[in-house]
Amino acid sequence: MMKLNGDVGESFGQWNMGCDSELIPLLDMANIACGFHASDPDHMSQTVKLCKAHDVTIGAHPGYPDLQGFGRRSLAMANESITHAILYQVGALQAVTKHHQTGVEYIKPHGALYNDMMASASVFDAVLQAAHTLELPLMILATSEANTYRSLADEQGVALIMEAFADRRYLSSGQLAPRQIENAVLHQPEEILSQADAFLSQRPITTIEGESLLLAPDTLCVHGDNQASIKVASQLKQRIAQTEAKAKS
Amino acid sequence: MMKLNGDVGESFGQWNMGCDSELIPLLDMANIACGFHASDPDHMSQTVKLCKAHDVTIGAHPGYPDLQGFGRRSLAMANESITHAILYQVGALQAVTKHHQTGVEYIKPHGALYNDMMASASVFDAVLQAAHTLELPLMILATSEANTYRSLADEQGVALIMEAFADRRYLSSGQLAPRQIENAVLHQPEEILSQADAFLSQRPITTIEGESLLLAPDTLCVHGDNQASIKVASQLKQRIAQTEAKAKS
Amino acid sequence: MMKLNGDVGESFGQWNMGCDSELIPLLDMANIACGFHASDPDHMSQTVKLCKAHDVTIGAHPGYPDLQGFGRRSLAMANESITHAILYQVGALQAVTKHHQTGVEYIKPHGALYNDMMASASVFDAVLQAAHTLELPLMILATSEANTYRSLADEQGVALIMEAFADRRYLSSGQLAPRQIENAVLHQPEEILSQADAFLSQRPITTIEGESLLLAPDTLCVHGDNQASIKVASQLKQRIAQTEAKAKS
Amino acid sequence: MMKLNGDVGESFGQWNMGCDSELIPLLDMANIACGFHASDPDHMSQTVKLCKAHDVTIGAHPGYPDLQGFGRRSLAMANESITHAILYQVGALQAVTKHHQTGVEYIKPHGALYNDMMASASVFDAVLQAAHTLELPLMILATSEANTYRSLADEQGVALIMEAFADRRYLSSGQLAPRQIENAVLHQPEEILSQADAFLSQRPITTIEGESLLLAPDTLCVHGDNQASIKVASQLKQRIAQTEAKAKS
Repeated sequence: MMKLNGDVGESFGQWNMGCDSELIPLLDMANIACGFHASDPDHMSQTVKLCKAHDVTIGAHPGYPDLQGFGRRSLAMANESITHAILYQVGALQAVTKHHQTGVEYIKPHGALYNDMMASASVFDAVLQAAHTLELPLMILATSEANTYRSLADEQGVALIMEAFADRRYLSSGQLAPRQIENAVLHQPEEILSQADAFLSQRPITTIEGESLLLAPDTLCVHGDNQASIKVASQLKQRIAQTEAKAKS
Repeated sequence: MMKLNGDVGESFGQWNMGCDSELIPLLDMANIACGFHASDPDHMSQTVKLCKAHDVTIGAHPGYPDLQGFGRRSLAMANESITHAILYQVGALQAVTKHHQTGVEYIKPHGALYNDMMASASVFDAVLQAAHTLELPLMILATSEANTYRSLADEQGVALIMEAFADRRYLSSGQLAPRQIENAVLHQPEEILSQADAFLSQRPITTIEGESLLLAPDTLCVHGDNQASIKVASQLKQRIAQTEAKAKS
Repeated sequence: MMKLNGDVGESFGQWNMGCDSELIPLLDMANIACGFHASDPDHMSQTVKLCKAHDVTIGAHPGYPDLQGFGRRSLAMANESITHAILYQVGALQAVTKHHQTGVEYIKPHGALYNDMMASASVFDAVLQAAHTLELPLMILATSEANTYRSLADEQGVALIMEAFADRRYLSSGQLAPRQIENAVLHQPEEILSQADAFLSQRPITTIEGESLLLAPDTLCVHGDNQASIKVASQLKQRIAQTEAKAKS
Repeated sequence: MMKLNGDVGESFGQWNMGCDSELIPLLDMANIACGFHASDPDHMSQTVKLCKAHDVTIGAHPGYPDLQGFGRRSLAMANESITHAILYQVGALQAVTKHHQTGVEYIKPHGALYNDMMASASVFDAVLQAAHTLELPLMILATSEANTYRSLADEQGVALIMEAFADRRYLSSGQLAPRQIENAVLHQPEEILSQADAFLSQRPITTIEGESLLLAPDTLCVHGDNQASIKVASQLKQRIAQTEAKAKS
């Protein structure tokens, strides 16, 4: 069954971000920021508590150490430093989850670290090393080269979780269309739900070039930035339930 | 048998601090900085590796979030925030130790956080909550009020490790003489070793006021700032071995 | 004529705070955060631009180095370090204002640094040293001990700007009633405007103990956290204009 | 006359770096770190004081916001953010220099920011914008494309100061040989002094490929990391004095 995942716990100190109290109840898997690009020990604790209350699976969402840039700016870290920085952040979240009698069940890198991991074999390897040590699955982008990533992950004994974006257009190459390309991001709920339907029924999607592309995601990423995205997430959750019910009947 | 403990892993980025490669082989217990007042994920990994190579027990050394002040400036954090900040730092170190197939075996707060913990029941309670969650013993200062601290720790099911300082004078009240008082810090090796001998043979020490004070430490804190302190640590280690040998014979 | 001042430019990275675009046009004096407790070079530039567009006098709003705590947690900095930290922050803002062909015209410390300055003569002196070097006036809290502060500031050749709060109750001692005391913060617009009227007409206000207290502020501090506070600021601005018009007629 | 410049004030909090008290008296121009990649307001003040005591011209040495990486890791900042970050850091140092009745006389970007400025026209432009606003000269690397940089700087009305490295080999292309290339860094004092002599007498140097390359630096960069580099700096200072004396006689 298709899972919904979302980035949460992105407030920091006195600054709020995202509608966590509305998004978390809609999620199956919550990617919790770990203090390097967003959040702090207090918000991590509060977010873990909320996830536990709604029985949502907790994932660690580590990023580059760059609060001002929200982890969206690539930083030329040594590969070994990337491994250590992920260990540090995930371990920090693990201790906080223990405080709430729960735990971390997967890792999803954030922002520029996520992009760098998908673009560079050595960064991907650095991330895998951390996941291997912590014996946790790693969430990455579903692409047409899934097998390449899987075989690298297999070598480290790391399970992969493949995520897709219902609200982003893809290139025929199987990559996400970069945000700066026109129409790379879908804003109309119908378009988003239509692409989601393709993922749910394991049908190909239509790429930005107009071709067919078949991806096999385990989870769709949704957002809680505002009321519009909460509504889309809610509709997606319903759609998944309907698809599931139909499949069972 | 009396243990030697020392603060290590206090380098940060390109900045070195302390003679870790000389101090660690002399220690029984190493208090490793966790990134808030000193260190970073890379230095934490390197320090854990060194401790493991020398079979030294690893403790987490969390501090206030203040790199510039090296955690020596008190920060008016909410008690709950102190608990979360300790969980965060210790968890981070735990993941790094896991990378080296070892673990964290106790917690010793650093600098102003250590002092605040000894001076404030509510800060002590905040620290105990983190130790309770992580099921780790807590290292505190051996004072004449040890029983008060023990009974508070017992309530949370936290074991205490009592440390004393061979190179610091004590007040007759059983507290450390503040550094700003004349002669509060011992610099002559003979004086330091003489006070250490009292601790090792469970005899009273002489306070700064000239009275007798009996403390019962489990461990003595030594330093690796420079060659002089390394030499003292080395002599202390020999003295402990001799005391131990004599006791056995 | 009574001035309105407000704390602005408190967003940080991707996190927004406050309704600056609505508050700034209502202000005479804008206290701009300088990156230690809030803001960053980008938001500082954007805020300076907005202030310049609305012809608002720019003040520097330096704080303790504590983004997570928003500068509201006291930090035990050495006095000399406080002077240096203020110089650093104000100088940073000065360069940013120069980029927009404008300048910094006064200093108002933020949060815990503001409180510590009012409570400690040595912290006040440390702040004065920075203001002296930069040849800028300093905004402080109007209290019944204004003369004490004035004589200390005179020694350093620093002009003072006295601010009062229309939305906070005062103690008969002339200090602000601490927030944790019941009714210390006024929430009803009528109450706030009524206290403002007393300040505008140089009449005594009624303290939380029910006594009369005469303060002589140069400026009232208003807030832009939400629509309610924007509305109060707007009403205060009108009230000042009316008082002014009446005085002239 | 050839000037010697050096990076100073790179200590941070409790961490020392470099032999500033020995290097500064040998320098004509001191590049002072501004708190983003190294230093803090206290060390900035102390370093300014030392430079003033030895009558050394003060330059601002701004870097990427990355203490852990010492500004040596490239960070994908927007160009506008680079301008703001430089303004912020230089302004901060200006206020600190004012505290010591002196001033900042030029800007030299640090580490990865320096490299990125030399490699990217848009980063160079972002740096120029800050220098233009602050009306300060900019120190860059002397290359064979000096004219290209000069014409861009001229457009912004910014004067350039060209620096060369006596202890680094150059490529025939006129760029510094990257550190990872064998023999890219000279360690033998004779080799360093020999290359320095070429710069002093305006003769071509021999590139790593064995060809001749004529550069026209205004200043040579020296280092104060350790006693060996202090000795080289001292010898270079003598050599410059001798060359100067010979030229005059």
